[in-house]
Amino acid sequence: MYGETVARLIDELKALPGIGQRTAERLAFHLVQAPKERALALAQAIHDVKQNARPCRVCFTVSEQDPCALCTDSSRDRSLLCVVERPQDVLSLEKAGGYRGLYHVLLGTVSLLDGVTPKDLTLEALVQRVRKGGVREVILATNPTFDGDATSLYLKQALEPLKVKLTRLARGLPTGSSLEFASRAILTEALEGRHTY
Amino acid sequence: MYGETVARLIDELKALPGIGQRTAERLAFHLVQAPKERALALAQAIHDVKQNARPCRVCFTVSEQDPCALCTDSSRDRSLLCVVERPQDVLSLEKAGGYRGLYHVLLGTVSLLDGVTPKDLTLEALVQRVRKGGVREVILATNPTFDGDATSLYLKQALEPLKVKLTRLARGLPTGSSLEFASRAILTEALEGRHTY
Repeated sequence: MYGETVARLIDELKALPGIGQRTAERLAFHLVQAPKERALALAQAIHDVKQNARPCRVCFTVSEQDPCALCTDSSRDRSLLCVVERPQDVLSLEKAGGYRGLYHVLLGTVSLLDGVTPKDLTLEALVQRVRKGGVREVILATNPTFDGDATSLYLKQALEPLKVKLTRLARGLPTGSSLEFASRAILTEALEGRHTY
Repeated sequence: MYGETVARLIDELKALPGIGQRTAERLAFHLVQAPKERALALAQAIHDVKQNARPCRVCFTVSEQDPCALCTDSSRDRSLLCVVERPQDVLSLEKAGGYRGLYHVLLGTVSLLDGVTPKDLTLEALVQRVRKGGVREVILATNPTFDGDATSLYLKQALEPLKVKLTRLARGLPTGSSLEFASRAILTEALEGRHTY
């Protein structure tokens, strides 16, 4: 009804993660009405990113340098490796500050439902990195979800033979929350992880 | 941290309606990792849309023809004009079927909070359309929200001097719902709108 090019833009937008039919329609119609230079600036930004940015060959985070600025930063502790699911997680941890080691981005999690196997992740590259030596501790920092936990279990099995220290992020009550609204799973983890005060 | 082009893409994505910092980051990182031809297909689709699609000069819906296919369809009832907020609403009503008149898209609502005044909408073009004659009834089909209702009230004031029949969509319980989960506002509208059975 709205023409072939608009239909194709809706299809392309729908291919993005988390964008459904309605959101794609909303964005497409917005772009039709938007000033031409604004819409084309977005198209240009996509072009430029594909030209300049790519996953770092060492840690797979998003970067315009390869290896990335983190991997080549000589002030970081190279004996510490934090394994996360996505480039966004590197951002979050860097914003939080405090961590001075290196990262490894898996680019996903294993997922039975979505048919993602360890082969689809950067697991093999991680094993190679650890095997090369110099890494004292690998922090498994996948999300505290079913898929994240399954992935960590997988990583544990793959890395244990390499005799590297494996740790994972603490679970418990999120600071600033209240017991009243914590789920059963959160409270169970908080109780199991209790320590002397 | 991830470079200038990625930062710019995040900014451009954030300028889209309903896209915040986190979603923009997620989409940008997805585009970095996506196969080059997939990402560039999206950029090309935006280009093509800006080349070919625009708001129809008569009804302001999104179209590749100007005037659009609906406005030039001689089988539609030209005495009936349905005024909606956005191009998506035309889609919804067309998918529902049953309506055989023409449309007028306001391209928004008046909104005190966002500083949108009637001048920012296509209200003047609507008044001109009705003034030209031939329109028997204008259906005010803005959303049943605070801003939608305010906009309809505004349209009523603007169109009343033109002696055209003004109607608005029925309010009440949505078919398939249950009284138990209906809000006070829905039940009040349903009671006020009750009719003999």
